[in-house]
Amino acid sequence: MNRETERLYFASDYMEGAHPAIMQKLLETNLEKTVGYGLDAYSESARAKIREACQAPEAMVHFLVGGTQTNATVIDALLKSYQGVISARTGHVSVHEAGAIEFGGHKVLTIEEKEGKVTAEGVKQCLMEYWKDDNHEHMVMPGMVYLSQPTEYGTIYSLDELEDISSVCRENGVYLYVDGARLAYALAAPGNDVTLPDLARYCDAFYIGGTKCGALFGEAVVFPNPKTVPHFFTIVKQHGALLAKGRIAGIQFDTLFTDGLYDKIGENAIRMADQVRAALRAKGYEQGIENPTNQVFLIVENDRQAQLARQVELAFMERVDAQHVMMRIATSWATSQADIDRLIALL
Amino acid sequence: MNRETERLYFASDYMEGAHPAIMQKLLETNLEKTVGYGLDAYSESARAKIREACQAPEAMVHFLVGGTQTNATVIDALLKSYQGVISARTGHVSVHEAGAIEFGGHKVLTIEEKEGKVTAEGVKQCLMEYWKDDNHEHMVMPGMVYLSQPTEYGTIYSLDELEDISSVCRENGVYLYVDGARLAYALAAPGNDVTLPDLARYCDAFYIGGTKCGALFGEAVVFPNPKTVPHFFTIVKQHGALLAKGRIAGIQFDTLFTDGLYDKIGENAIRMADQVRAALRAKGYEQGIENPTNQVFLIVENDRQAQLARQVELAFMERVDAQHVMMRIATSWATSQADIDRLIALL
Amino acid sequence: MNRETERLYFASDYMEGAHPAIMQKLLETNLEKTVGYGLDAYSESARAKIREACQAPEAMVHFLVGGTQTNATVIDALLKSYQGVISARTGHVSVHEAGAIEFGGHKVLTIEEKEGKVTAEGVKQCLMEYWKDDNHEHMVMPGMVYLSQPTEYGTIYSLDELEDISSVCRENGVYLYVDGARLAYALAAPGNDVTLPDLARYCDAFYIGGTKCGALFGEAVVFPNPKTVPHFFTIVKQHGALLAKGRIAGIQFDTLFTDGLYDKIGENAIRMADQVRAALRAKGYEQGIENPTNQVFLIVENDRQAQLARQVELAFMERVDAQHVMMRIATSWATSQADIDRLIALL
Amino acid sequence: MNRETERLYFASDYMEGAHPAIMQKLLETNLEKTVGYGLDAYSESARAKIREACQAPEAMVHFLVGGTQTNATVIDALLKSYQGVISARTGHVSVHEAGAIEFGGHKVLTIEEKEGKVTAEGVKQCLMEYWKDDNHEHMVMPGMVYLSQPTEYGTIYSLDELEDISSVCRENGVYLYVDGARLAYALAAPGNDVTLPDLARYCDAFYIGGTKCGALFGEAVVFPNPKTVPHFFTIVKQHGALLAKGRIAGIQFDTLFTDGLYDKIGENAIRMADQVRAALRAKGYEQGIENPTNQVFLIVENDRQAQLARQVELAFMERVDAQHVMMRIATSWATSQADIDRLIALL
Repeated sequence: MNRETERLYFASDYMEGAHPAIMQKLLETNLEKTVGYGLDAYSESARAKIREACQAPEAMVHFLVGGTQTNATVIDALLKSYQGVISARTGHVSVHEAGAIEFGGHKVLTIEEKEGKVTAEGVKQCLMEYWKDDNHEHMVMPGMVYLSQPTEYGTIYSLDELEDISSVCRENGVYLYVDGARLAYALAAPGNDVTLPDLARYCDAFYIGGTKCGALFGEAVVFPNPKTVPHFFTIVKQHGALLAKGRIAGIQFDTLFTDGLYDKIGENAIRMADQVRAALRAKGYEQGIENPTNQVFLIVENDRQAQLARQVELAFMERVDAQHVMMRIATSWATSQADIDRLIALL
Repeated sequence: MNRETERLYFASDYMEGAHPAIMQKLLETNLEKTVGYGLDAYSESARAKIREACQAPEAMVHFLVGGTQTNATVIDALLKSYQGVISARTGHVSVHEAGAIEFGGHKVLTIEEKEGKVTAEGVKQCLMEYWKDDNHEHMVMPGMVYLSQPTEYGTIYSLDELEDISSVCRENGVYLYVDGARLAYALAAPGNDVTLPDLARYCDAFYIGGTKCGALFGEAVVFPNPKTVPHFFTIVKQHGALLAKGRIAGIQFDTLFTDGLYDKIGENAIRMADQVRAALRAKGYEQGIENPTNQVFLIVENDRQAQLARQVELAFMERVDAQHVMMRIATSWATSQADIDRLIALL
Repeated sequence: MNRETERLYFASDYMEGAHPAIMQKLLETNLEKTVGYGLDAYSESARAKIREACQAPEAMVHFLVGGTQTNATVIDALLKSYQGVISARTGHVSVHEAGAIEFGGHKVLTIEEKEGKVTAEGVKQCLMEYWKDDNHEHMVMPGMVYLSQPTEYGTIYSLDELEDISSVCRENGVYLYVDGARLAYALAAPGNDVTLPDLARYCDAFYIGGTKCGALFGEAVVFPNPKTVPHFFTIVKQHGALLAKGRIAGIQFDTLFTDGLYDKIGENAIRMADQVRAALRAKGYEQGIENPTNQVFLIVENDRQAQLARQVELAFMERVDAQHVMMRIATSWATSQADIDRLIALL
Repeated sequence: MNRETERLYFASDYMEGAHPAIMQKLLETNLEKTVGYGLDAYSESARAKIREACQAPEAMVHFLVGGTQTNATVIDALLKSYQGVISARTGHVSVHEAGAIEFGGHKVLTIEEKEGKVTAEGVKQCLMEYWKDDNHEHMVMPGMVYLSQPTEYGTIYSLDELEDISSVCRENGVYLYVDGARLAYALAAPGNDVTLPDLARYCDAFYIGGTKCGALFGEAVVFPNPKTVPHFFTIVKQHGALLAKGRIAGIQFDTLFTDGLYDKIGENAIRMADQVRAALRAKGYEQGIENPTNQVFLIVENDRQAQLARQVELAFMERVDAQHVMMRIATSWATSQADIDRLIALL
C-alpha cells in the first residue's frame, strides 16, 4: 500500500496492539504452564511492582480486562445496594457505558462539571443536598465519588484539587475512586503533579489503564487499603470479569512496570498532540477544550469535516451548532511522526 | 531448571498461552491501526470464516472475552426479565460462575443430569411441571435450556441427543444455548457426530470456546438467526464485555478458523488424554466419569493424592468418601509428550 | 383535645384513611371468602368498571399497592434490559424512589422540564440525540417516556400536549407511560381537558392513583392494549407487588369507580386549595409554581417557616436562597373546611 | 344464597378480610390525619408492643405489605451482593416467589429438607462444602439461612432445632432469618415450644405474618439487633415496599398485639384443622405430611378430586402418581364450624 494515500486513524488511543516489549514477553512465555486467575508468578510480580510504584505496600491489586467492566465491578464492590455514585455529568460511567452501573443496581448521581472536571465544592454540595433534604431517606444515598484522570476531555486534576476532593469524601464517609483509563497520559503531561503514590494516598480505589496505554488490554485495579473490599475476587468472577489465563494481563503489567515504562509510555502521545495543537493554532482552527494530554479537540464546519473524513478518521464529539461540529484527534504511545506530519499537512 | 524435577501442571486446559500461529499473527499486525470494538477487518474476516464453518451464512457472530461473561451476557440477552434458564445441576452456570446469572436477575432452574448431561425427557418434564402447575404464574418461567458441549465432565452429546433436546425446546418455545468452552475437544473426540453446522442448525445460540482451545482468551458467540437478539452489541457493552481492541479477539479467531485449525486443535489433547486413560487402566486406578475428550478423572486415596500433589498439580473435583477424592487431569492442545510421559511415570 | 389548638397537617395528600364508602364496603364484605391475587369477583368488577370509564374494552388492568412499586414494576415490564426511561429531571422516578428503577437495572434519562412538565420537543430532542450520536450503541437506549399527571408540582398536561408527546413516542417506537398517583386531582381541575379515555388512547400504560385519591392504598395499572406486556402477573409477583388478598384493592377501586366517584373525589381538594391560593394572594405571600390542582407552593422566610411549623405541618420542597424556603400545602379529598379556615387564619 | 349449596373455600388461609377488631379500629381512626411511612403514633405503638412481646427492647420493627416482598427486601438487605441464601428445596423463596430473590441479584442455595424442614446438620454441610471447596471463590458464598415457621408443609421447628440451626449460623458468621407468614398458627400449635422471644433470641431477622393471620395485609419485620441493617427504610423504599399510609399497617399490628390477640388468633384454625384431620383418619383417607398447624394434606384419586372440586376449592400441591394427587385444606382464624361441618360431610 502506498503510505502517502493510506487512510489515517486518529479516532482513539486504542487503535494499535501492544508495546513491543509486551509482545516480546508474551512470546517468550507463551508455552509456559501457570495456574490461572491471576495467581501466577507474573501477576504476582506485576502486583509487587505496582505496589512499589504506588508506595502502597499493602495494596490489593487485581487485573481486569476493560474500562467499563472495571468501573462497573469496582463501583458495585464499593457501594451498598442502596447507594449511588457521584460523577461529572460527562463522566464515562454516566454517558458511555450503556447503563453498566445501573445494570448493577446503582444510580449515577450526576453533578456539574467544567471541562470534564468536578470540584470539591460541587461534591460537597451534592452531599449536603442529600443529607439536608427532609426526604433524603426516599432518595439514593451517595456512597462514592467517581473521577477520571485525565478526564474524558483530556484535562487533569491538580494535586490540590485531588486533595480537596479527597478531604470532602473522607469527611463525609464516601469513597473516592479514580478511573485511570488514560492515566499514563496524565502522568506524562507537562504540569501534572499527581503521581501514583498520590492516587494511592488520596483514593480508596483507582485503576491504572492498560488498554489505552500500551497493553493489548487490561486495567490494574488498586485498593491501597486491602481491607476495603473483602472477597473482591468473587465479585470480579460474578461480574464475568475474571480472566482465566490471568497471566496474560499480569505479564503485560509486569512489563509496563519494569524500568518505569508506564511513567514514560505517554510521552510520545503528548509530544505528538502538542505538535497538532501548535499546527491548529498556526492554521487558525478553533480548538475545543484545551488540555495537556493526548486528546485534541477542534471545532470545524460541517463541510470541512466531511472533507477531512475522506482521509482521516477522527472521533465525533458533539454538534456545536447547525454549521459546526467538535471532533477529536487522539494520539497514543504508538503514534508515528510520519502520521502526524501527514495529518498536519491535511489540516 | 532440570526438566526431570520440574513441577507438572495438569490442573486445567488454560495453563499455556496461545497457539504459535496466533502469536505470530498478533506480532505481525501489532502496529497496524484499526477501528475498535470488533468492527475491524480482522474481526470481519473471522466472522466470515466462522459463518462458513457453521454453514450459517446469516449468523450474527460476536467475540467476547471469557466463558462466565459470555454465559451471563447471552443468557441475559435471550431471557425475558421474569424467565430462568434450565441447566444440569452440575452446569457451569449453576455451580461455578459466582452467581453471574443471578446477578443479571435470572434463576438457574436445575434438573437432574447423568455424567453432566441432561436429556430431552428431563427438559420436557421440567417444562411440563412448570406449565401444569396451578401456581406456575408464581414461579420462574423457563425461557431457555443451557447445555455444555463437552460437559463439565468431558462427556459429549450425540447428534441424536442434541436433536431431541432441540425438538423439545422448539415445541415449547424455549431457546437452546450451548456453552462450547471446550468445543474443540468435542469436535476432535472419537465418536463425536455433532459438527459446527449441527450446532448452528439445532441451537438458537452457542459459543465456540477460544480460551481453553488455543487462544490467549476469547469466545465466539454465534446466533445462527441474526434477528434472535436485537442490539446485542449494546447488551455486550452493558455487561462490561466489549473489548476496546476487538481485533485482538478477531485475529485469534481468524487464525483458529484458517485452514481448519479449530477442527484439529483438540486432537493432541485427546491423544494425550487417551494415553493417560490407558495408563490408569493398566495401573489399576479407578477412573471417574469416562469420556472421550480431554479430561481424565481418577479416584485416589487421600494419601496418594497428597503424594501426587507434591509433584503434579491436578484439579480437585469432589470428595468421594472419607478416604477418597476424585481428581482431574486436563490435557490441552499444547500438552507435550514429555510431560505426559513424566505424568504416567509418576502415577 | 381542643380543636382550636390541635396541630394541623397539610404536608401531603395521604394523611387520612379511605373514603367512607370504601370503608363501608370493606366492612360489609369482610368475612366473605374469595380467591386471592385479584382473581376474585370484586376485582373483576372493578376492572370492568375501569375499562368502561376508560372506554378501553380490551384493557388489561392490575391493582398494585403503591406508587414507587407501580412505577418500578411497569417500567421494568415495558423496557428491554438495555433500555432506559426518559423522565423530567424532577420526575418522581428520578428523584424520590430511592433508586427503585435502577434496582431493576434501568437508567432514568432525565430531560429538562418546566414546572414539572416535559415537552414533545424535549422528548424528541432526547431521542434524536441518542440516535444521531455516533456512539449510541455505547449508550443507554431510550425505550419509553415517563410523565406524571398531575406532575410533582401540581401542573397538568393539556390534551394537545399529551397528544404531541404521544405522537413523538409512536413515531419513534418508544412507549408512553403516565404516573397518575394524583390523577383524581387532575381530572377535577378547572381547565383540565385530559380524560381517562384520552389517557387510554394516547398512552401505552398509565396508573390511576388510589393511595392519594381516596383509598387506603392501591394503584390501578391500565394497559389499553392487553398484549403490550405478556405475563405481567408474574412480573408483578417477581417485584413483590402481588397482593395476596387482592380483593382488598379490588373492592376499593370497585367503589371508586361506582357512580363516578373517582371523577368527583378530587373536587373538594381543589376547592380547598383554591381558598388557600386566594388567601395567600390576599395576604401578599409569594407563591411558587402556580397550578390548578391540590398542591399549593409558597415561598416564605426562614423565620416565618419556623413559626408556622409549630402549628401546622407542611412539606419542605427546596431552599430558595439563604433566607427563603419553598413549602408545600397539600389538600385532599378529605380536607375539611374547618381545617382550611384555621390554616388561613394562621397564615 | 342457600348456605347448604354454596361453594366451600379451603384453598388457602388468606380468603377472608381482617379480624373484626382490626376493621373496627380502622373505621374509628379513618379520618384522623397522621404522618406517612410508618412514622405515625399507631405504628410506633405497634412497634412498642411487638418489642415487648418479643422481649427485644432494642428491636427495629418495620411493617411491609406482603410475604414475597418482605423476603426479597430482607434477604437483599442482609446479604452482600455476592452472597446467596440457604433454603430448603421446598422453601417459598425457592419455589413460589417468581424469582424475586434472583431479581435482587442473589442465588437461592437449596438444601435437602424433610417435610419442609432443614436441619442444623444440613446447613452445616452446605457451609462446609462451600468453604472446603478449592473453587469456592468461584461460587456463590452462603450469607444467610432462610427458614419458615411453620414451613410450607405446616410442620414446625422445635426450640432445640431452632437453637441448633442458630448455633451453626453464628459459628459460621451467617445470618438466620425466619419467614413467619403463618407464624400465628405455629404459636398456637399444640406442642410448639418456640415463642416470639425465642425467635428474637435466635434469629437475626424474622417476620410476623399479618396477611395470613388476621390482617388485611401486612408483615412485621423484626431485627432484634437494630444495628443489623443500617438504612433499612431506604432499602424498603428502593424495593417499592414502603407504604405511604403506613398507619394502615401499624393499626393492624397494634390491634393484633393488643391483649395477646396474635398469640390466640391461630387457635381456631388449629381446632378446625384437627377436626378435619380426625375426620380424614376416620374415613380412611391417606394424609400427606402430618403437622400440628392449619394445613391438612390429603392424597386422593383423580376422580375423587374432580368430584370434590365441584363443591369445595382446595389447593393443588403435587401429583403423587398417575392416579393420585396431593391436595391441601387450609383453615384460618376465620374458618367457621358450619363450613367445617359441611366439608367433613362432603369428604
